[in-house]
Order: sequence, then C-alpha cells, then structure tokens
Amino acid sequence: MTEVELRPGLEGVPATATSVSVLDTEAEQIVVRGYDLIELAQRLAYPDVAHLLIHGHLPDRSEQEGFCRRLAQAALLPPGMEELLAALPSGMEAMDGLRTGISALAGWEDPGLLADRSPEADRAKAERLLARAPAVAAGAWRATTGRDQVRADPELGFAERFLHLVLGSVPDADAVRAFDRILTCYSEHELPNSTFAARVVASTWSDLYGAATAAVASLKGPLHGGANEASAHLLLELQAKGGAARAGAEIKERLSRGERIMGFGHRVYMRRPDPRAELLDRELPGLAARRPDGEELLQIAEAVRTVMLEEKGLYPNTDFPIGIALYLLGIPIELDTPIFYCARVAGLMAHVIEEHEHGRLYRPRVAYRGPRGQHVPEGMAPSPC
Amino acid sequence: MTEVELRPGLEGVPATATSVSVLDTEAEQIVVRGYDLIELAQRLAYPDVAHLLIHGHLPDRSEQEGFCRRLAQAALLPPGMEELLAALPSGMEAMDGLRTGISALAGWEDPGLLADRSPEADRAKAERLLARAPAVAAGAWRATTGRDQVRADPELGFAERFLHLVLGSVPDADAVRAFDRILTCYSEHELPNSTFAARVVASTWSDLYGAATAAVASLKGPLHGGANEASAHLLLELQAKGGAARAGAEIKERLSRGERIMGFGHRVYMRRPDPRAELLDRELPGLAARRPDGEELLQIAEAVRTVMLEEKGLYPNTDFPIGIALYLLGIPIELDTPIFYCARVAGLMAHVIEEHEHGRLYRPRVAYRGPRGQHVPEGMAPSPC
Repeated sequence: MTEVELRPGLEGVPATATSVSVLDTEAEQIVVRGYDLIELAQRLAYPDVAHLLIHGHLPDRSEQEGFCRRLAQAALLPPGMEELLAALPSGMEAMDGLRTGISALAGWEDPGLLADRSPEADRAKAERLLARAPAVAAGAWRATTGRDQVRADPELGFAERFLHLVLGSVPDADAVRAFDRILTCYSEHELPNSTFAARVVASTWSDLYGAATAAVASLKGPLHGGANEASAHLLLELQAKGGAARAGAEIKERLSRGERIMGFGHRVYMRRPDPRAELLDRELPGLAARRPDGEELLQIAEAVRTVMLEEKGLYPNTDFPIGIALYLLGIPIELDTPIFYCARVAGLMAHVIEEHEHGRLYRPRVAYRGPRGQHVPEGMAPSPC
Repeated sequence: MTEVELRPGLEGVPATATSVSVLDTEAEQIVVRGYDLIELAQRLAYPDVAHLLIHGHLPDRSEQEGFCRRLAQAALLPPGMEELLAALPSGMEAMDGLRTGISALAGWEDPGLLADRSPEADRAKAERLLARAPAVAAGAWRATTGRDQVRADPELGFAERFLHLVLGSVPDADAVRAFDRILTCYSEHELPNSTFAARVVASTWSDLYGAATAAVASLKGPLHGGANEASAHLLLELQAKGGAARAGAEIKERLSRGERIMGFGHRVYMRRPDPRAELLDRELPGLAARRPDGEELLQIAEAVRTVMLEEKGLYPNTDFPIGIALYLLGIPIELDTPIFYCARVAGLMAHVIEEHEHGRLYRPRVAYRGPRGQHVPEGMAPSPC
C-alpha cells in the first residue's frame, strides 16, 4: 500500500520542520531557538526562556517587565474555575485533575480569541495558559485531596508563586532558584511524545487549549512524564529497604528480574549523559540539607547511578535528579509530573504557534495486519439495542 | 541528523501496525477487522460494530444481549458528573465541554482499574466510556446552553437513547435507523488525526481516558471533525442566499476566492468517492420529508455536489451527507462533531487497546530549521520575576 517502511514509534522519523528546538546529539546540546538550554538555565530565569519560546526572542528589560506583569495579572483563576475544580471527585489523580482543568480553561477564554489561530492571538492565549497552569495544577490537587485552596499571589515571581501555590507558604530564595532552574530544564525538549501529541492536535486547527490538554494526557503516561515521580518513589523504597548499603544490590536484583528502572537513558541521547541531568546533579548537595534524610537519599541515588552505568551503560536523564530535587524541596511526589507539565507549557505553546502557522494535518497510514474478506454471517440479526 | 525524508503531516507514512482497520483504496473498501464497513452498516446495528471493534469479533445472540445490558447499565452518569457539568461556564463550545467531561470521567473510575492497561481492563473501561460518551456530550451541551438535563434511559436502545439525550423526546423508528447507520459510518476509519492522537497518547502507557480526551481535542479542529458542521452551515447559508438556483454560482465564487469548501475530498481517497457518503446519500430523500425545507436543502446539496465535481474533481466525503442528515433529524448543528466523536469512541477504544498491548512509545525527531550558536548577551540580567 505504501513504500515507506514502518518504524515503530516513528523512531528516527522527522515528523515536522521546526525552529523551536533540536536535540543536537553530536554537540551534546539541547538547542532552543539557537541557544544552549544549559546556558539559558545558568544565566537567566525561567520567564526569560518562556518568553524566548513563546515570542521567539529573549526579552529586553522592558519586555521582561511587561511579561512579568502580564503573567502576574493572569495568574489568578476565574472564580468559576475554582467551582469547577471543587466539583472534581475526591481522590482523582493529580494529572487527571490537571488535564480536566486545562481543558475547562477554554470555557473562560473569549470565544473569538479562542478560535483565532493567528500567532498574535495564540501568543496572548499562550501567556495566559502559562500563567494559569500552576494554579490549575495546584488547585486541582488541593481540591481532590481535601486541602484548602491557595490563591495565586501576583506580588511573587513566577517560580516563587508556583512554589507558594504548592507549599502554601512563601519559599526562601534558595528554593526559588533551584525550582526556577528545574522549570527551565523542563521548558522545552524538541519533540517528545507530549509535544508531538500537541502538534498532532494543533494540526487540525484545533485550538491551543485542546493541544495543551492532549499534552497533559501524554505526560501522564509512566513511560513519559511519570519518570520523575518514579525516581522519587524508587529512592524512598530503597531507603526503606536498607538504605545506601543495600541500594546497589537491590537495583541489580530488580534488573535481573527484568524490571525497568525509570529516570535512566533516553531514546535520543542513547548512551550519552543528559546535559540537564549533569546541571541539576550539581544542585542536589545544596538541597540535601533541607531534609533530615537528604544526605542518605543522595548516597542512595549515587549507588543507583553507579549500578545503572555498570550494568546497563545508562546515564540518568533529567527526571532522576529532578525527582530527588523536588522531594528535597518538600514537594509532594504526586505533583512532580504536573510541575513538569507546567514548565513544559512554554515549549508546548511555541510548537502549537508554529504548527498553526506552518503545519500540515497529520494523517499517517497503517501497516494492516488483520484479516480480510470477512462477511456478516447469513441470518445474523442486528443487535436488539 | 537523520536519513529519513521529512513528509509533512506524515503523508503516506505508516505510523503503526494494526489489525483494527485499513482504508483499502484499491478495493474502495473501508475494512474493519476484515469486514466491509458498508456491509456492516447495512446488515447490523451500531452496537454490533462497536462490539466487533472493542472485543475483536461480532457478537453472537447472547453476547449481543450482554453487551446491550452493560451499555444500558453504564449509560447513566455518576451524580458527581452532573455537578461537574453544571460547573462548566455558560456559552462554552460543545466540543470543549465534551473534552472536559470525558477527561473528568477518569475521576469516577476505580483507581486500580484506571491504571490497568491489560486488554481485559481496557475493554471494561472502553464499554463504560462508549456507554457514557453520549450522556457527556449531551449533558455538557445542555449545561452550557441553559437547557434542562435529560437522563440516559436504560430502557432504550443505543441510538435511540442517544437521540433521546439530544432531542429530549423518544425518536421514531425511522430516525433511529438513520442515526444508527450514521453512527456505524463514523465508528472507525483507520488512522485519522484523532485516532492517531489517541494512539500517540496511549503509547506512553497513559490511560484510556487520556487517549480519549486527546481525540476530542483533535476532532474539534475544523480540518478534521468540524466538516460535518461546516457542511450543514454551508447549506443554510446557500439557502439564505438564493437557494438552489444560486447555489452553484455561489460555490464557484467561493472557489474563485480560494475558499475551502468543507465536506469534499479526502487525503486518502483522493479523487475516488467515499463509500460511506454513497451509502448515506441514499438515506437523504427519506429524511427530507421531516422538515419543511428538506427538499430545498437536498436540491442545494445536489448543486454543490455538481459544482465541486466539475470544478475541483472532488466527491463528497462522509461529512457532507451526515451534516445534512443530522440537520434533517432536527439535531442542533453544534452537536454534529460531538456525535461524530461519540460514534468514533468504538474505533478509538480498539486502537487504544491495541496500542497498550503492542505499541512502542511515539518519539519522532524534527528537521531543525532554526538558528544555532546564539549566546545570552553579556550583561543581560535575569527576569525580575
């Protein structure tokens, strides 16, 4: 039917042209609009990188101030959204609440603007979604876990406001700095499944909220966004099972049983280290003092790293240090993936804007492996319903 | 970076192996698990086709009865869902309400079952989603347009119950039969954008509700699911602008202005007729008597068909007759795409079950067209927020 070879998972297949980012595996660089993501994380703040992604260039001083002001103004959820989040069922998973909330936000968008796919209209909506996603993530989690709501504080900076929504208290400067760097490391990463899902949806000219909703659904998957949570849970399990002294042996046992250890390796980096993991690893010692078991967890992490490299030749990807860092910051583990998502909104929006401008409807074909020539049995009556 | 050629929109690229369905453009057949979809639509009822898709085989008499019973039992929404739908903002688009409602349904699923990706668990959830989607579609639309809620009636058949939810009254047998056939024509169609979006999401091991939510987002796009609504609106516009006598000239003018006429052509069928459109065209004369302007609309439709074939060499796709048929059945146009979605749930679920069993995480690459070698300007200070 088609001469193109089936590559499961579209491995190695270029699915779109883009000027947003590329994983340059030869230079070992995550290139975001021409910049090295690691340089951006070290030199600038997350809102700068979000501006670069959404608006295509780094902001000057006046653009920085305007962007910060608009993000602060838009951060507070519409009152009706609080009621909607309150109607989510108790015990709903955090990513399911986030997905529902992001989808619902479309209802509070101006109808004309919602349907407008021009870059200008998309950028205005993208800023609003970037501003509100942390309040939706924290609000849905608070509503479904019986916690009091915390309102987004326009007086705080972006990372500070986000931590305040999650923790319920204004965080110290060290926490804000580490969290901001984590957000930048998660901001954009070429065409992972969630970004691809968003582009696939946007290619139908569906609106930005729909594309953003599909990305939450994708990121919920344990093979994708769930790896940071899995890393944190792994360390706590190893802590309970004998700590650093037993950790290496435990990992070997799990590997010998064929279990998958999340947070290691990456289809694109393959056997090279993830530069984001290298950067964030350096944050961990400074964060360890924030919890009584911090040092112990870092020793366990080190043991896991060693065994994974020796046994599988795999380096940690960014989810491994981030899972640890978020735990050390006192963030409930079930919020790790929602936080990943909120940080990635910046990159997702850049891709949706680009897809709306230049994209072509995704409509691939299949390699059919099923039967042919079947017929409805003689005498079969239609269903009674 | 990669040797595979970029094909925008993945045109002609096989993205997955499947035994669910294939568009056989040589035999001019939509093959669903080996059967000709048109034969299924003519001989059986929609629940039979849904059973074939979800369970992999046509039901025998006892399976038909069990399937009908389970669909009827599951059709009523959990009480909390009604409260959630009531919290959707007034004026929200029907597809946005549906997307939010489908996402929210996950919160009422048993947590263990929600995370279980086994075919058995997925089939149980798929049946429930199939049963509930019409109540979510109608309920969200009723809530956001200020209409009274209508509860799903377990005593009615599937197509009958669906029409009752939409129209608020129990429909006659002719309407049910035509609507059932429309549902079957929409039930499955290989790998359109929405099915692809669902598979992309499911490939992360994300749950069935997330994949189903992504598909709503995709189907909302005017290039995909919106075409049936566009067809109905087109006919009403032509009716207001001089009726059948002027319709041909009006379409020519629109084409000469470069406008796109929705409901014609299909990337895969190209210049062959869509067999579903051929089948459903035959339903239209019988339905025309249901509205005073029915005959006039069919004449307008015929004029549009003629011009599109003469001027563009394009045949109607299934959205064109369905847009007309749903209008003749008295269904508000804004529900056309939600109805398309609810019918497609059967096919979507078959693909998600297959993806969970055999899939590989979708993670394509990009063709990077952006800059390189950029550096943060000396002296640039991080954003103040």
